[in-house]
Amino acid sequence: MTLEPVLDRIDAELPAATERLLDLLRIPSISTDPAYKAECDRAADWLVADLESIGFQVSKRPTPGHPMVVAHSGGEGPHVLFYGHYDVQPVDPPELWDRDPFDPQVENLPTGKVIRGRGSSDDKGQLMTFVEACRAWKDVHGALPTNISLFFEGEEESGSPSLVPFMEENAEELKADIALICDTGLYGDSTPAIITQLRGLLGEELTITGPNKDLHSGSYGGIAMNPARVLAKVIASLHDEGGRITVPDFYDGVPELSNELAAAWDDLKFDEKDFLGEVGLSIPAGEKGRRPLEMIWSRPTCEVNGMTSGYTGDGFKTVLPSKASAKISFRLVGTQDPFAIRKKFRKMVSDMIPADCSVSFKDHGAGPAGQMSTTHPAFEKARDALSDEWPNAAAYVGCGGSIPIAGYFKTVLDMDAMLIGFGKDDDQIHSPNEKYDLSSFHKGIRSWARILHNLTQ
Amino acid sequence: MTLEPVLDRIDAELPAATERLLDLLRIPSISTDPAYKAECDRAADWLVADLESIGFQVSKRPTPGHPMVVAHSGGEGPHVLFYGHYDVQPVDPPELWDRDPFDPQVENLPTGKVIRGRGSSDDKGQLMTFVEACRAWKDVHGALPTNISLFFEGEEESGSPSLVPFMEENAEELKADIALICDTGLYGDSTPAIITQLRGLLGEELTITGPNKDLHSGSYGGIAMNPARVLAKVIASLHDEGGRITVPDFYDGVPELSNELAAAWDDLKFDEKDFLGEVGLSIPAGEKGRRPLEMIWSRPTCEVNGMTSGYTGDGFKTVLPSKASAKISFRLVGTQDPFAIRKKFRKMVSDMIPADCSVSFKDHGAGPAGQMSTTHPAFEKARDALSDEWPNAAAYVGCGGSIPIAGYFKTVLDMDAMLIGFGKDDDQIHSPNEKYDLSSFHKGIRSWARILHNLTQ
Repeated sequence: MTLEPVLDRIDAELPAATERLLDLLRIPSISTDPAYKAECDRAADWLVADLESIGFQVSKRPTPGHPMVVAHSGGEGPHVLFYGHYDVQPVDPPELWDRDPFDPQVENLPTGKVIRGRGSSDDKGQLMTFVEACRAWKDVHGALPTNISLFFEGEEESGSPSLVPFMEENAEELKADIALICDTGLYGDSTPAIITQLRGLLGEELTITGPNKDLHSGSYGGIAMNPARVLAKVIASLHDEGGRITVPDFYDGVPELSNELAAAWDDLKFDEKDFLGEVGLSIPAGEKGRRPLEMIWSRPTCEVNGMTSGYTGDGFKTVLPSKASAKISFRLVGTQDPFAIRKKFRKMVSDMIPADCSVSFKDHGAGPAGQMSTTHPAFEKARDALSDEWPNAAAYVGCGGSIPIAGYFKTVLDMDAMLIGFGKDDDQIHSPNEKYDLSSFHKGIRSWARILHNLTQ
Repeated sequence: MTLEPVLDRIDAELPAATERLLDLLRIPSISTDPAYKAECDRAADWLVADLESIGFQVSKRPTPGHPMVVAHSGGEGPHVLFYGHYDVQPVDPPELWDRDPFDPQVENLPTGKVIRGRGSSDDKGQLMTFVEACRAWKDVHGALPTNISLFFEGEEESGSPSLVPFMEENAEELKADIALICDTGLYGDSTPAIITQLRGLLGEELTITGPNKDLHSGSYGGIAMNPARVLAKVIASLHDEGGRITVPDFYDGVPELSNELAAAWDDLKFDEKDFLGEVGLSIPAGEKGRRPLEMIWSRPTCEVNGMTSGYTGDGFKTVLPSKASAKISFRLVGTQDPFAIRKKFRKMVSDMIPADCSVSFKDHGAGPAGQMSTTHPAFEKARDALSDEWPNAAAYVGCGGSIPIAGYFKTVLDMDAMLIGFGKDDDQIHSPNEKYDLSSFHKGIRSWARILHNLTQ
């Protein structure tokens, strides 16, 4: 089967493909908020119907959380399993969006057209690049170039609680020759990238309780313990002066960057002034003495993702709060053990709580870092395909984010995974005004069409 | 004019007086929240109508914020000016209330009847004790026992921005022989108290900005400055290990307790185990080496009243927040200068902000501590009246709260002020499920009837 007519078809079909994506983006499938459970289900149904229209055998599979969508083409050739997620992040703060996050549209910017809306880049727009590539192959040749399965999750933005049990229960069905994951970005604007290392993630929520109710800070201030002060002390103690994380044994399993990788990354000429300037910053804020790229790709972190206590509305309320809580996440690298770190973090925090306060913890997911082996021949084939599509040759890069699925493909299914995506640094994923460049969408579809072609060569 | 029939009338009129209070409590006059502006106005109108029905000359007086209500009886005898406030605190968190905070009712508890609802104790229930005492005198004798003015404010819970300008502009009209303020409590359950010292209050809100938008903590975590970490560090640095506040020169003007006052307070046999046990605590958390009563009456404090950053909803969001903010209040004593402290606090915080972050401040009011002179003969007359009404003799005590009006009566109008109130420690003012004991309301009305009588003797 020839590639060229498929690429032509993709070009011709772009307006219709964009409409389909807009349709999917209109479904507010926020997985972390129980209020949107039915919407997550609706997004799964949408995918089932769309994949059936391409000729896949599709099933929506219940889990204790949101459903999985699994589809198979059958057929000859190497068997690839494509993964994406149909759930999206919450939209807070809504007032910072220039438009309704779930009323997406194509906007004309000076830099080109973008698809604006929650999930456009993370990950609905990306997963649809692969679906559209399949549709084009099918439309042109009446068949797919190889044996393709798709596996869509609806819990990626809420810690993927059902993922591993589902993979274990359905290992036979999901196992393929190679996994493809589209949830990452380009390197810069025009260099396609295959991720070879990903940080892991440990999510923790802690709530410190002092008095058994909110108190008047006049009547009780000075004699009653204030849990907001205790929480501040805990958070302030999580990093030392040099930016290192103080949880005991935290750095066990954190490897030093190899000379080879250090040289390869230096070749990428990462411009931290540009990268930080884009978001109003200028100074790399991580551990002293580390390369900026190390700070985001190969060093572990501890970040406060949310924090609340007492009265946070307009005006002022002289309350001495009963509770203070924070959501804290750790990005992990190398062989850091998220479960060991959780245990030590909780002990460290508990040891800091004064006699009159108590602390409780809530688990928000834990996944180790991922290290891809690039020896599978699919890696070089994909790299060639990407280099053919884009102005610059494809690069092997690291990624600061956490896509635990990549590790699970290895540990649960013993498959290698290729992480290829077309997002850009300014896509504002997880933030207000998320967008996906129309060129990312278009060239992304073309990239997958090429990769599928190369894999069969 | 005789006292006894007035007291009888108060007893007989209690059910009707309670209904009137419930009516006023139904108006959600939350002054700090602009959404309730019309409700504040409605509460002022309610008072105007009620005072007119007693025969006062009443006016509702506009201010840049919420209106003042001023009423005069005219007539012979010493001229007293009674102050109260008709605005109330916000109700957050609403889910912790056992009933709608603005659908008040009388509840039968094992310990006696209570009036439950926002504002029942702070301050609508208290201000109505005086109004009802006036009504009883008028009903029985056709006149008040002395020359009475009333002065009700609607901004006490939001920093009283209009108070001093209004007092200055209307000094002639407001000036009387003595001011009476009903916004404080009993000492313990059955000892009436006249407050002779009050802490001042400085309210500050600070917002630290790091990145110019919320970021993905995977893409940026480790390289981008997190303002929640900066805020935690600022808050953690406000107290030293001994519980002392670290703002430079903060303790300028903080007096040591006199031996005489120390002895008088020791006589009160304050039981900190009981006081703290009531709210689920057990250990006095203030400066090391200070008496528990000092911690709440005569030592300054710094408390976090509210704190927020990033994602605080259900579930988890791996955001690296753009902003982190806190509401912080200082309780002041002696001659501490709130404006000097504001300046030094802001400088200290600004000096801690790293190069890539900025901080902005918002002023939420500033008032010095108050020290009453008890040489005015009204003090002893009131003390006798209170001792006649209650099981225990009245005491001169301190107060941890801040009622700046007391200081303003002295500084703006050169009047002494007597702070007498009937709230209890367990009234849960500023908290969910605020209540006012029906006995506080009843004996409070009787107390004012007695005080008015004694003042004319």
